[in-house]
Amino acid sequence: MQPSAIETHRVRGVLLDLGGVVYVGNAPINGAIAAIDRLREAGIALRFITNTTRRPRREVILDLGRMGLHVSGHELITPALMARAVLERHGQSPFLVVHPALEEDFAGLARGGSEAVVVGDAGEHFTYDRLNAAFRKLSAGAGLLALAKNRNFKDRDGELSLDAGPFVVALEYAAKREAVLLGKPSPEFFNLALDSLGCAMDRVVMIGDDAEADVAGARRFGIGGILVRTGKYRPGEENEWQLQPECVADNLEAAVDRILGWRSAASM
Amino acid sequence: MQPSAIETHRVRGVLLDLGGVVYVGNAPINGAIAAIDRLREAGIALRFITNTTRRPRREVILDLGRMGLHVSGHELITPALMARAVLERHGQSPFLVVHPALEEDFAGLARGGSEAVVVGDAGEHFTYDRLNAAFRKLSAGAGLLALAKNRNFKDRDGELSLDAGPFVVALEYAAKREAVLLGKPSPEFFNLALDSLGCAMDRVVMIGDDAEADVAGARRFGIGGILVRTGKYRPGEENEWQLQPECVADNLEAAVDRILGWRSAASM
Repeated sequence: MQPSAIETHRVRGVLLDLGGVVYVGNAPINGAIAAIDRLREAGIALRFITNTTRRPRREVILDLGRMGLHVSGHELITPALMARAVLERHGQSPFLVVHPALEEDFAGLARGGSEAVVVGDAGEHFTYDRLNAAFRKLSAGAGLLALAKNRNFKDRDGELSLDAGPFVVALEYAAKREAVLLGKPSPEFFNLALDSLGCAMDRVVMIGDDAEADVAGARRFGIGGILVRTGKYRPGEENEWQLQPECVADNLEAAVDRILGWRSAASM
Repeated sequence: MQPSAIETHRVRGVLLDLGGVVYVGNAPINGAIAAIDRLREAGIALRFITNTTRRPRREVILDLGRMGLHVSGHELITPALMARAVLERHGQSPFLVVHPALEEDFAGLARGGSEAVVVGDAGEHFTYDRLNAAFRKLSAGAGLLALAKNRNFKDRDGELSLDAGPFVVALEYAAKREAVLLGKPSPEFFNLALDSLGCAMDRVVMIGDDAEADVAGARRFGIGGILVRTGKYRPGEENEWQLQPECVADNLEAAVDRILGWRSAASM
Protein backbone atom coordinates (compact mmCIF):
# COMPACT_ATOMS: atom_id res chain seq x y z
CA MET A 1 0.00 0.00 0.00
CA GLN A 2 1.14 3.53 -0.77
CA PRO A 3 1.78 5.98 2.08
CA SER A 4 -1.38 7.79 3.00
CA ALA A 5 -2.07 11.06 1.23
CA ILE A 6 -4.07 12.37 4.17
CA GLU A 7 -3.33 13.35 7.73
CA THR A 8 -4.94 10.31 9.29
CA HIS A 9 -4.48 11.60 12.83
CA ARG A 10 -6.44 14.74 12.00
CA VAL A 11 -9.50 13.35 10.21
CA ARG A 12 -12.28 15.92 10.55
CA GLY A 13 -14.83 14.69 8.02
CA VAL A 14 -16.09 11.34 6.75
CA LEU A 15 -18.05 10.58 3.56
CA LEU A 16 -20.17 7.48 3.99
CA ASP A 17 -21.55 5.50 1.10
CA LEU A 18 -24.99 4.23 2.15
CA GLY A 19 -25.91 1.09 0.17
CA GLY A 20 -23.57 -1.80 1.01
CA VAL A 21 -21.81 0.14 3.80
CA VAL A 22 -24.57 1.31 6.17
CA TYR A 23 -27.35 -1.01 4.97
CA VAL A 24 -28.12 -3.83 2.57
CA GLY A 25 -31.67 -4.02 1.22
CA ASN A 26 -33.83 -2.57 4.00
CA ALA A 27 -31.67 -3.63 6.97
CA PRO A 28 -28.72 -1.85 8.57
CA ILE A 29 -25.44 -3.79 8.58
CA ASN A 30 -24.54 -5.14 12.02
CA GLY A 31 -22.89 -2.46 14.17
CA ALA A 32 -23.20 0.26 11.52
CA ILE A 33 -25.65 2.57 13.31
CA ALA A 34 -23.67 2.47 16.58
CA ALA A 35 -20.44 3.13 14.66
CA ILE A 36 -21.95 6.23 13.06
CA ASP A 37 -22.98 7.47 16.53
CA ARG A 38 -19.37 7.09 17.69
CA LEU A 39 -18.15 9.25 14.78
CA ARG A 40 -20.68 11.94 15.74
CA GLU A 41 -19.61 11.80 19.42
CA ALA A 42 -16.00 12.30 18.31
CA GLY A 43 -17.04 15.55 16.61
CA ILE A 44 -16.43 14.30 13.08
CA ALA A 45 -18.61 15.88 10.37
CA LEU A 46 -20.51 13.35 8.28
CA ARG A 47 -22.00 13.30 4.79
CA PHE A 48 -24.04 10.36 3.56
CA ILE A 49 -23.90 9.50 -0.12
CA THR A 50 -26.40 7.66 -2.25
CA ASN A 51 -26.40 7.20 -6.00
CA THR A 52 -30.14 6.58 -6.12
CA THR A 53 -31.89 8.57 -8.84
CA ARG A 54 -35.37 7.15 -8.32
CA ARG A 55 -36.28 8.43 -4.85
CA PRO A 56 -36.29 12.05 -3.65
CA ARG A 57 -34.05 13.08 -0.74
CA ARG A 58 -37.07 13.35 1.57
CA GLU A 59 -37.91 9.67 1.07
CA VAL A 60 -34.31 8.53 1.50
CA ILE A 61 -34.17 10.36 4.86
CA LEU A 62 -37.46 8.78 5.95
CA ASP A 63 -36.23 5.30 5.00
CA LEU A 64 -32.98 5.82 6.93
CA GLY A 65 -34.99 6.98 9.98
CA ARG A 66 -36.99 3.74 9.85
CA MET A 67 -33.69 1.85 10.09
CA GLY A 68 -32.75 3.91 13.16
CA LEU A 69 -30.33 6.22 11.37
CA HIS A 70 -31.17 9.89 11.81
CA VAL A 71 -29.75 12.07 9.06
CA SER A 72 -30.32 15.81 8.59
CA GLY A 73 -31.14 17.22 5.19
CA HIS A 74 -27.74 18.90 4.83
CA GLU A 75 -25.97 15.61 5.59
CA LEU A 76 -27.39 13.73 2.59
CA ILE A 77 -25.77 14.07 -0.83
CA THR A 78 -27.60 12.70 -3.87
CA PRO A 79 -26.98 13.11 -7.61
CA ALA A 80 -30.16 15.24 -7.78
CA LEU A 81 -28.73 17.62 -5.16
CA MET A 82 -25.55 17.91 -7.21
CA ALA A 83 -27.51 18.56 -10.39
CA ARG A 84 -29.41 21.27 -8.57
CA ALA A 85 -26.16 22.91 -7.47
CA VAL A 86 -24.83 22.85 -11.05
CA LEU A 87 -28.10 24.27 -12.43
CA GLU A 88 -28.08 27.08 -9.86
CA ARG A 89 -24.43 27.90 -10.54
CA HIS A 90 -25.10 28.25 -14.29
CA GLY A 91 -28.54 29.84 -13.93
CA GLN A 92 -30.05 26.97 -15.96
CA SER A 93 -33.54 25.55 -15.71
CA PRO A 94 -33.91 21.76 -15.94
CA PHE A 95 -35.63 19.67 -18.60
CA LEU A 96 -36.21 16.52 -16.57
CA VAL A 97 -35.95 12.99 -17.93
CA VAL A 98 -36.30 11.38 -14.49
CA HIS A 99 -38.70 9.26 -12.47
CA PRO A 100 -41.71 11.44 -11.48
CA ALA A 101 -40.95 10.77 -7.79
CA LEU A 102 -37.66 12.64 -8.19
CA GLU A 103 -39.20 15.82 -9.59
CA GLU A 104 -39.70 17.38 -6.15
CA ASP A 105 -35.90 17.59 -5.74
CA PHE A 106 -35.89 20.11 -8.60
CA ALA A 107 -38.82 22.21 -7.42
CA GLY A 108 -38.46 26.00 -7.15
CA LEU A 109 -35.54 26.42 -9.54
CA ALA A 110 -35.59 29.65 -11.54
CA ARG A 111 -37.30 29.28 -14.94
CA GLY A 112 -36.27 31.00 -18.14
CA GLY A 113 -32.68 31.49 -19.20
CA SER A 114 -30.77 28.57 -20.65
CA GLU A 115 -31.73 24.95 -20.11
CA ALA A 116 -30.08 21.68 -19.23
CA VAL A 117 -31.44 18.18 -19.83
CA VAL A 118 -31.19 16.13 -16.61
CA VAL A 119 -31.28 12.32 -17.03
CA GLY A 120 -31.86 9.90 -14.14
CA ASP A 121 -33.22 6.38 -13.92
CA ALA A 122 -36.70 7.08 -15.28
CA GLY A 123 -37.65 3.42 -15.81
CA GLU A 124 -40.89 3.08 -17.76
CA HIS A 125 -40.99 6.89 -17.98
CA PHE A 126 -38.25 6.74 -20.61
CA THR A 127 -40.64 7.28 -23.53
CA TYR A 128 -39.72 8.08 -27.11
CA ASP A 129 -41.54 11.42 -26.89
CA ARG A 130 -39.68 12.49 -23.76
CA LEU A 131 -36.29 11.40 -25.11
CA ASN A 132 -37.00 13.06 -28.44
CA ALA A 133 -38.00 16.31 -26.72
CA ALA A 134 -34.72 16.11 -24.75
CA PHE A 135 -32.79 15.54 -27.99
CA ARG A 136 -34.38 18.62 -29.53
CA LYS A 137 -33.41 20.69 -26.46
CA LEU A 138 -29.83 19.41 -26.84
CA SER A 139 -29.84 20.28 -30.55
CA ALA A 140 -30.89 23.80 -29.57
CA GLY A 141 -27.89 24.11 -27.22
CA ALA A 142 -29.15 22.85 -23.85
CA GLY A 143 -26.64 21.27 -21.43
CA LEU A 144 -26.69 17.54 -20.58
CA LEU A 145 -26.39 16.37 -16.96
CA ALA A 146 -26.35 12.64 -16.14
CA LEU A 147 -27.37 11.73 -12.59
CA ALA A 148 -25.80 8.32 -13.19
CA LYS A 149 -24.45 6.22 -16.03
CA ASN A 150 -25.00 2.71 -14.64
CA ARG A 151 -25.71 0.08 -17.27
CA ASN A 152 -28.23 -1.95 -15.28
CA PHE A 153 -29.62 -2.71 -11.83
CA LYS A 154 -31.15 -5.71 -10.10
CA ASP A 155 -34.89 -5.23 -10.55
CA ARG A 156 -37.70 -6.33 -8.23
CA ASP A 157 -38.16 -9.58 -10.18
CA GLY A 158 -34.51 -10.44 -9.48
CA GLU A 159 -33.45 -9.89 -13.10
CA LEU A 160 -31.23 -7.10 -14.43
CA SER A 161 -33.03 -4.14 -15.98
CA LEU A 162 -31.90 -1.10 -17.96
CA ASP A 163 -30.60 1.73 -15.73
CA ALA A 164 -30.04 5.38 -16.71
CA GLY A 165 -26.72 4.78 -18.49
CA PRO A 166 -28.05 3.37 -21.79
CA PHE A 167 -30.40 6.35 -22.19
CA VAL A 168 -27.61 8.81 -21.36
CA VAL A 169 -25.42 7.31 -24.10
CA ALA A 170 -28.40 7.31 -26.49
CA LEU A 171 -28.72 11.09 -26.06
CA GLU A 172 -24.93 11.55 -26.21
CA TYR A 173 -24.83 9.66 -29.52
CA ALA A 174 -27.80 11.54 -30.96
CA ALA A 175 -26.45 14.98 -30.00
CA LYS A 176 -22.74 14.15 -30.56
CA ARG A 177 -22.00 15.43 -27.07
CA GLU A 178 -20.76 14.07 -23.73
CA ALA A 179 -22.91 14.36 -20.62
CA VAL A 180 -21.55 15.85 -17.40
CA LEU A 181 -21.71 12.92 -14.95
CA LEU A 182 -22.71 13.97 -11.46
CA GLY A 183 -22.44 10.80 -9.36
CA LYS A 184 -19.31 9.19 -7.88
CA PRO A 185 -16.49 9.19 -8.88
CA SER A 186 -16.78 12.49 -10.77
CA PRO A 187 -14.70 15.47 -9.55
CA GLU A 188 -18.00 17.44 -9.44
CA PHE A 189 -19.17 15.02 -6.79
CA PHE A 190 -16.11 15.19 -4.54
CA ASN A 191 -15.99 18.98 -4.90
CA LEU A 192 -19.54 19.36 -3.70
CA ALA A 193 -18.99 16.91 -0.82
CA LEU A 194 -15.91 18.81 0.37
CA ASP A 195 -17.63 22.18 0.05
CA SER A 196 -20.50 20.84 2.09
CA LEU A 197 -18.19 19.43 4.80
CA GLY A 198 -16.08 22.57 4.96
CA CYS A 199 -12.89 20.54 5.58
CA ALA A 200 -9.53 20.47 3.79
CA MET A 201 -9.26 17.41 1.55
CA ASP A 202 -6.35 15.91 3.50
CA ARG A 203 -8.60 15.62 6.54
CA VAL A 204 -11.44 13.75 4.87
CA VAL A 205 -11.94 10.00 4.39
CA MET A 206 -14.46 8.28 2.15
CA ILE A 207 -15.78 4.89 3.31
CA GLY A 208 -17.20 2.69 0.57
CA ASP A 209 -17.69 -0.85 -0.74
CA ASP A 210 -16.67 -0.02 -4.33
CA ALA A 211 -12.89 -0.09 -4.82
CA GLU A 212 -13.23 1.85 -8.08
CA ALA A 213 -15.89 4.52 -7.63
CA ASP A 214 -15.54 5.05 -3.88
CA VAL A 215 -11.92 4.42 -2.99
CA ALA A 216 -9.82 4.95 -6.14
CA GLY A 217 -12.14 7.88 -7.02
CA ALA A 218 -11.61 9.54 -3.63
CA ARG A 219 -7.85 8.97 -3.65
CA ARG A 220 -7.54 10.36 -7.17
CA PHE A 221 -9.17 13.50 -5.86
CA GLY A 222 -6.84 13.69 -2.82
CA ILE A 223 -9.27 12.37 -0.24
CA GLY A 224 -8.54 9.29 1.91
CA GLY A 225 -10.35 6.03 1.17
CA ILE A 226 -11.35 3.06 3.32
CA LEU A 227 -12.74 -0.01 1.60
CA VAL A 228 -15.16 -2.21 3.56
CA ARG A 229 -15.68 -5.93 2.92
CA THR A 230 -19.49 -5.61 2.84
CA GLY A 231 -22.01 -4.88 0.07
CA LYS A 232 -20.60 -5.37 -3.41
CA TYR A 233 -17.02 -6.01 -2.19
CA ARG A 234 -15.25 -8.92 -3.91
CA PRO A 235 -12.05 -10.38 -2.32
CA GLY A 236 -8.87 -8.93 -3.80
CA GLU A 237 -10.70 -6.02 -5.45
CA GLU A 238 -8.54 -3.46 -3.63
CA ASN A 239 -5.51 -4.63 -5.65
CA GLU A 240 -7.16 -4.00 -9.02
CA TRP A 241 -6.75 -0.24 -8.78
CA GLN A 242 -3.54 1.73 -8.71
CA LEU A 243 -4.87 4.02 -6.01
CA GLN A 244 -5.39 1.66 -3.12
CA PRO A 245 -7.30 2.35 0.08
CA GLU A 246 -5.76 3.75 3.27
CA CYS A 247 -7.02 0.52 4.76
CA VAL A 248 -9.45 -2.33 4.14
CA ALA A 249 -11.85 -3.02 7.02
CA ASP A 250 -14.26 -5.89 7.58
CA ASN A 251 -17.21 -3.52 7.92
CA LEU A 252 -18.17 0.02 8.90
CA GLU A 253 -17.65 -0.71 12.61
CA ALA A 254 -14.05 -1.80 11.96
CA ALA A 255 -13.49 1.20 9.69
CA VAL A 256 -14.62 3.58 12.44
CA ASP A 257 -12.32 1.77 14.92
CA ARG A 258 -9.43 2.58 12.58
CA ILE A 259 -10.33 6.25 12.17
CA LEU A 260 -10.79 6.80 15.90
CA GLY A 261 -7.62 4.76 16.56
CA TRP A 262 -5.57 7.10 14.32
CA ARG A 263 -6.79 10.11 16.26
CA SER A 264 -6.18 8.67 19.73
CA ALA A 265 -2.72 7.40 18.70
CA ALA A 266 -1.83 10.98 17.75
CA SER A 267 -3.09 12.42 21.04
CA MET A 268 -1.12 9.95 23.19
CA MET B 1 -8.91 10.70 -59.00
CA GLN B 2 -7.46 7.25 -58.68
CA PRO B 3 -7.53 4.83 -61.60
CA SER B 4 -10.80 2.88 -61.62
CA ALA B 5 -10.82 -0.43 -59.79
CA ILE B 6 -13.50 -1.80 -62.07
CA GLU B 7 -13.78 -2.72 -65.70
CA THR B 8 -15.90 0.25 -66.68
CA HIS B 9 -16.44 -1.00 -70.22
CA ARG B 10 -17.93 -4.25 -68.93
CA VAL B 11 -20.41 -3.01 -66.32
CA ARG B 12 -23.08 -5.70 -65.89
CA GLY B 13 -24.84 -4.59 -62.73
CA VAL B 14 -25.81 -1.29 -61.09
CA LEU B 15 -26.79 -0.65 -57.48
CA LEU B 16 -29.08 2.36 -57.23
CA ASP B 17 -29.64 4.27 -54.03
CA LEU B 18 -33.29 5.39 -54.04
CA GLY B 19 -33.71 8.47 -51.81
CA GLY B 20 -31.83 11.48 -53.23
CA VAL B 21 -30.89 9.62 -56.45
CA VAL B 22 -34.16 8.36 -57.93
CA TYR B 23 -36.57 10.55 -55.96
CA VAL B 24 -36.70 13.32 -53.38
CA GLY B 25 -39.71 13.34 -51.07
CA ASN B 26 -42.55 11.82 -53.15
CA ALA B 27 -41.37 12.98 -56.58
CA PRO B 28 -38.94 11.34 -58.98
CA ILE B 29 -35.88 13.42 -59.90
CA ASN B 30 -36.06 14.82 -63.43
CA GLY B 31 -34.98 12.23 -66.01
CA ALA B 32 -34.42 9.49 -63.42
CA ILE B 33 -37.20 7.10 -64.49
CA ALA B 34 -36.23 7.27 -68.17
CA ALA B 35 -32.56 6.74 -67.29
CA ILE B 36 -33.43 3.58 -65.37
CA ASP B 37 -35.37 2.31 -68.42
CA ARG B 38 -32.26 2.86 -70.56
CA LEU B 39 -30.16 0.74 -68.15
CA ARG B 40 -32.74 -2.05 -68.38
CA GLU B 41 -32.80 -1.84 -72.19
CA ALA B 42 -29.00 -2.19 -72.21
CA GLY B 43 -29.37 -5.50 -70.31
CA ILE B 44 -27.83 -4.24 -67.10
CA ALA B 45 -29.08 -5.92 -63.91
CA LEU B 46 -30.41 -3.48 -61.31
CA ARG B 47 -30.84 -3.53 -57.57
CA PHE B 48 -32.54 -0.67 -55.76
CA ILE B 49 -31.38 0.18 -52.27
CA THR B 50 -33.24 1.90 -49.48
CA ASN B 51 -32.19 2.33 -45.88
CA THR B 52 -35.76 2.80 -44.68
CA THR B 53 -36.58 0.75 -41.61
CA ARG B 54 -40.12 2.04 -41.11
CA ARG B 55 -41.92 0.72 -44.19
CA PRO B 56 -42.17 -2.89 -45.36
CA ARG B 57 -40.81 -3.84 -48.79
CA ARG B 58 -44.34 -4.24 -50.15
CA GLU B 59 -45.15 -0.57 -49.38
CA VAL B 60 -41.86 0.70 -50.81
CA ILE B 61 -42.61 -1.12 -54.09
CA LEU B 62 -46.15 0.34 -54.18
CA ASP B 63 -44.82 3.87 -53.58
CA LEU B 64 -42.24 3.48 -56.36
CA GLY B 65 -44.99 2.25 -58.71
CA ARG B 66 -47.01 5.41 -57.96
CA MET B 67 -43.98 7.44 -59.12
CA GLY B 68 -43.87 5.43 -62.36
CA LEU B 69 -40.95 3.22 -61.37
CA HIS B 70 -41.75 -0.48 -61.61
CA VAL B 71 -39.51 -2.61 -59.41
CA SER B 72 -39.78 -6.38 -58.86
CA GLY B 73 -39.54 -7.83 -55.36
CA HIS B 74 -36.12 -9.39 -56.03
CA GLU B 75 -34.78 -6.01 -57.22
CA LEU B 76 -35.36 -4.20 -53.92
CA ILE B 77 -32.80 -4.48 -51.13
CA THR B 78 -33.75 -3.20 -47.66
CA PRO B 79 -32.06 -3.59 -44.27
CA ALA B 80 -34.99 -5.83 -43.22
CA LEU B 81 -34.29 -8.16 -46.15
CA MET B 82 -30.66 -8.32 -45.10
CA ALA B 83 -31.59 -9.06 -41.50
CA ARG B 84 -33.84 -11.84 -42.72
CA ALA B 85 -30.99 -13.37 -44.72
CA VAL B 86 -28.69 -13.25 -41.67
CA LEU B 87 -31.36 -14.78 -39.42
CA GLU B 88 -31.99 -17.60 -41.90
CA ARG B 89 -28.27 -18.27 -42.30
CA HIS B 90 -27.85 -18.64 -38.52
CA GLY B 91 -31.18 -20.36 -37.88
CA GLN B 92 -32.14 -17.55 -35.49
CA SER B 93 -35.61 -16.25 -34.71
CA PRO B 94 -36.02 -12.47 -34.35
CA PHE B 95 -36.98 -10.45 -31.29
CA LEU B 96 -38.21 -7.32 -33.06
CA VAL B 97 -37.69 -3.77 -31.81
CA VAL B 98 -39.07 -2.18 -34.98
CA HIS B 99 -42.02 -0.18 -36.22
CA PRO B 100 -45.11 -2.46 -36.30
CA ALA B 101 -45.48 -1.78 -40.05
CA LEU B 102 -42.14 -3.51 -40.64
CA GLU B 103 -43.10 -6.74 -38.86
CA GLU B 104 -44.52 -8.33 -42.04
CA ASP B 105 -41.00 -8.40 -43.52
CA PHE B 106 -40.07 -10.92 -40.80
CA ALA B 107 -43.15 -13.13 -41.11
CA GLY B 108 -42.75 -16.88 -41.50
CA LEU B 109 -39.25 -17.22 -40.06
CA ALA B 110 -38.61 -20.45 -38.13
CA ARG B 111 -39.27 -20.12 -34.40
CA GLY B 112 -37.34 -21.79 -31.63
CA GLY B 113 -33.58 -22.14 -31.62
CA SER B 114 -31.42 -19.14 -30.78
CA GLU B 115 -32.64 -15.57 -30.99
CA ALA B 116 -31.41 -12.23 -32.30
CA VAL B 117 -32.66 -8.80 -31.32
CA VAL B 118 -33.41 -6.74 -34.45
CA VAL B 119 -33.51 -2.94 -34.00
CA GLY B 120 -34.99 -0.56 -36.57
CA ASP B 121 -36.46 2.91 -36.37
CA ALA B 122 -39.38 2.08 -34.07
CA GLY B 123 -40.27 5.71 -33.28
CA GLU B 124 -42.81 5.95 -30.48
CA HIS B 125 -42.73 2.14 -30.26
CA PHE B 126 -39.35 2.39 -28.53
CA THR B 127 -40.77 1.80 -25.05
CA TYR B 128 -38.83 1.04 -21.89
CA ASP B 129 -40.52 -2.35 -21.59
CA ARG B 130 -39.62 -3.38 -25.14
CA LEU B 131 -36.02 -2.16 -24.83
CA ASN B 132 -35.67 -3.83 -21.43
CA ALA B 133 -37.02 -7.11 -22.80
CA ALA B 134 -34.46 -6.82 -25.63
CA PHE B 135 -31.69 -6.15 -23.10
CA ARG B 136 -32.66 -9.28 -21.18
CA LYS B 137 -32.55 -11.32 -24.39
CA LEU B 138 -29.06 -9.93 -25.07
CA SER B 139 -27.96 -10.79 -21.52
CA ALA B 140 -29.14 -14.34 -22.18
CA GLY B 141 -26.94 -14.55 -25.29
CA ALA B 142 -29.16 -13.36 -28.15
CA GLY B 143 -27.50 -11.71 -31.17
CA LEU B 144 -27.92 -7.99 -31.96
CA LEU B 145 -28.71 -6.82 -35.51
CA ALA B 146 -29.05 -3.09 -36.27
CA LEU B 147 -31.08 -2.23 -39.38
CA ALA B 148 -29.52 1.24 -39.23
CA LYS B 149 -27.47 3.39 -36.89
CA ASN B 150 -28.52 6.88 -38.03
CA ARG B 151 -28.52 9.50 -35.32
CA ASN B 152 -31.59 11.41 -36.48
CA PHE B 153 -33.94 12.11 -39.37
CA LYS B 154 -36.02 15.04 -40.57
CA ASP B 155 -39.45 14.43 -39.05
CA ARG B 156 -42.85 15.41 -40.48
CA ASP B 157 -42.82 18.66 -38.46
CA GLY B 158 -39.56 19.63 -40.18
CA GLU B 159 -37.48 19.16 -37.01
CA LEU B 160 -34.88 16.47 -36.41
CA SER B 161 -36.06 13.44 -34.42
CA LEU B 162 -34.29 10.45 -32.87
CA ASP B 163 -33.60 7.66 -35.37
CA ALA B 164 -32.68 4.03 -34.63
CA GLY B 165 -28.99 4.76 -33.87
CA PRO B 166 -29.36 6.14 -30.33
CA PHE B 167 -31.40 3.09 -29.29
CA VAL B 168 -28.88 0.71 -30.89
CA VAL B 169 -26.03 2.30 -28.90
CA ALA B 170 -28.18 2.21 -25.74
CA LEU B 171 -28.51 -1.58 -26.09
CA GLU B 172 -24.83 -1.91 -27.03
CA TYR B 173 -23.83 0.00 -23.89
CA ALA B 174 -26.20 -1.98 -21.66
CA ALA B 175 -25.06 -5.36 -22.98
CA LYS B 176 -21.39 -4.41 -23.52
CA ARG B 177 -21.64 -5.67 -27.09
CA GLU B 178 -21.47 -4.29 -30.63
CA ALA B 179 -24.39 -4.67 -32.99
CA VAL B 180 -23.99 -6.12 -36.47
CA LEU B 181 -24.94 -3.20 -38.74
CA LEU B 182 -26.85 -4.29 -41.84
CA GLY B 183 -27.30 -1.10 -43.85
CA LYS B 184 -24.80 0.63 -46.13
CA PRO B 185 -21.79 0.75 -45.96
CA SER B 186 -21.41 -2.58 -44.12
CA PRO B 187 -19.67 -5.45 -45.95
CA GLU B 188 -22.78 -7.56 -45.14
CA PHE B 189 -24.75 -5.16 -47.30
CA PHE B 190 -22.46 -5.20 -50.33
CA ASN B 191 -22.08 -8.98 -50.07
CA LEU B 192 -25.83 -9.50 -50.22
CA ALA B 193 -26.21 -7.03 -53.08
CA LEU B 194 -23.52 -8.79 -55.16
CA ASP B 195 -24.97 -12.23 -54.41
CA SER B 196 -28.33 -10.99 -55.52
CA LEU B 197 -26.96 -9.47 -58.75
CA GLY B 198 -24.84 -12.53 -59.54
CA CYS B 199 -22.05 -10.36 -61.03
CA ALA B 200 -18.33 -10.16 -60.27
CA MET B 201 -17.54 -7.08 -58.16
CA ASP B 202 -15.37 -5.46 -60.84
CA ARG B 203 -18.42 -5.27 -63.11
CA VAL B 204 -20.71 -3.51 -60.66
CA VAL B 205 -21.21 0.20 -60.00
CA MET B 206 -23.05 1.81 -57.08
CA ILE B 207 -24.78 5.16 -57.75
CA GLY B 208 -25.44 7.27 -54.69
CA ASP B 209 -25.67 10.77 -53.25
CA ASP B 210 -23.63 9.97 -50.12
CA ALA B 211 -19.87 10.20 -50.72
CA GLU B 212 -19.19 8.24 -47.54
CA ALA B 213 -21.76 5.45 -47.26
CA ASP B 214 -22.48 4.96 -50.97
CA VAL B 215 -19.30 5.76 -52.83
CA ALA B 216 -16.37 5.31 -50.42
CA GLY B 217 -18.20 2.28 -48.97
CA ALA B 218 -18.61 0.66 -52.39
CA ARG B 219 -15.03 1.39 -53.45
CA ARG B 220 -13.66 -0.01 -50.16
CA PHE B 221 -15.50 -3.20 -51.03
CA GLY B 222 -14.12 -3.28 -54.59
CA ILE B 223 -17.24 -2.06 -56.37
CA GLY B 224 -17.27 1.05 -58.56
CA GLY B 225 -18.92 4.21 -57.29
CA ILE B 226 -20.60 7.16 -59.02
CA LEU B 227 -21.56 10.17 -56.92
CA VAL B 228 -24.53 12.26 -58.06
CA ARG B 229 -25.00 15.93 -57.25
CA THR B 230 -28.61 15.47 -56.09
CA GLY B 231 -30.19 14.62 -52.71
CA LYS B 232 -27.87 15.15 -49.78
CA TYR B 233 -24.80 15.94 -51.97
CA ARG B 234 -22.76 18.93 -50.78
CA PRO B 235 -20.21 20.53 -53.19
CA GLY B 236 -16.69 19.19 -52.69
CA GLU B 237 -17.85 16.21 -50.63
CA GLU B 238 -16.19 13.77 -53.03
CA ASN B 239 -12.77 15.07 -51.95
CA GLU B 240 -13.35 14.35 -48.27
CA TRP B 241 -12.87 10.61 -48.68
CA GLN B 242 -9.74 8.79 -49.70
CA LEU B 243 -11.72 6.46 -51.95
CA GLN B 244 -13.12 8.81 -54.53
CA PRO B 245 -15.84 8.05 -57.06
CA GLU B 246 -15.21 6.72 -60.57
CA CYS B 247 -16.97 9.90 -61.57
CA VAL B 248 -19.24 12.65 -60.24
CA ALA B 249 -22.39 13.23 -62.31
CA ASP B 250 -24.97 16.00 -62.11
CA ASN B 251 -27.79 13.51 -61.64
CA LEU B 252 -28.85 9.93 -62.37
CA GLU B 253 -29.47 10.71 -66.04
CA ALA B 254 -25.88 11.96 -66.45
CA ALA B 255 -24.56 8.97 -64.47
CA VAL B 256 -26.35 6.57 -66.84
CA ASP B 257 -24.93 8.48 -69.82
CA ARG B 258 -21.46 7.78 -68.43
CA ILE B 259 -22.05 4.07 -67.84
CA LEU B 260 -23.56 3.53 -71.30
CA GLY B 261 -20.79 5.70 -72.78
CA TRP B 262 -18.08 3.46 -71.27
CA ARG B 263 -19.70 0.41 -72.83
CA SER B 264 -20.16 1.85 -76.29
CA ALA B 265 -16.62 3.29 -76.29
CA ALA B 266 -15.34 -0.25 -75.69
CA SER B 267 -17.43 -1.74 -78.50
CA MET B 268 -16.27 0.81 -81.08
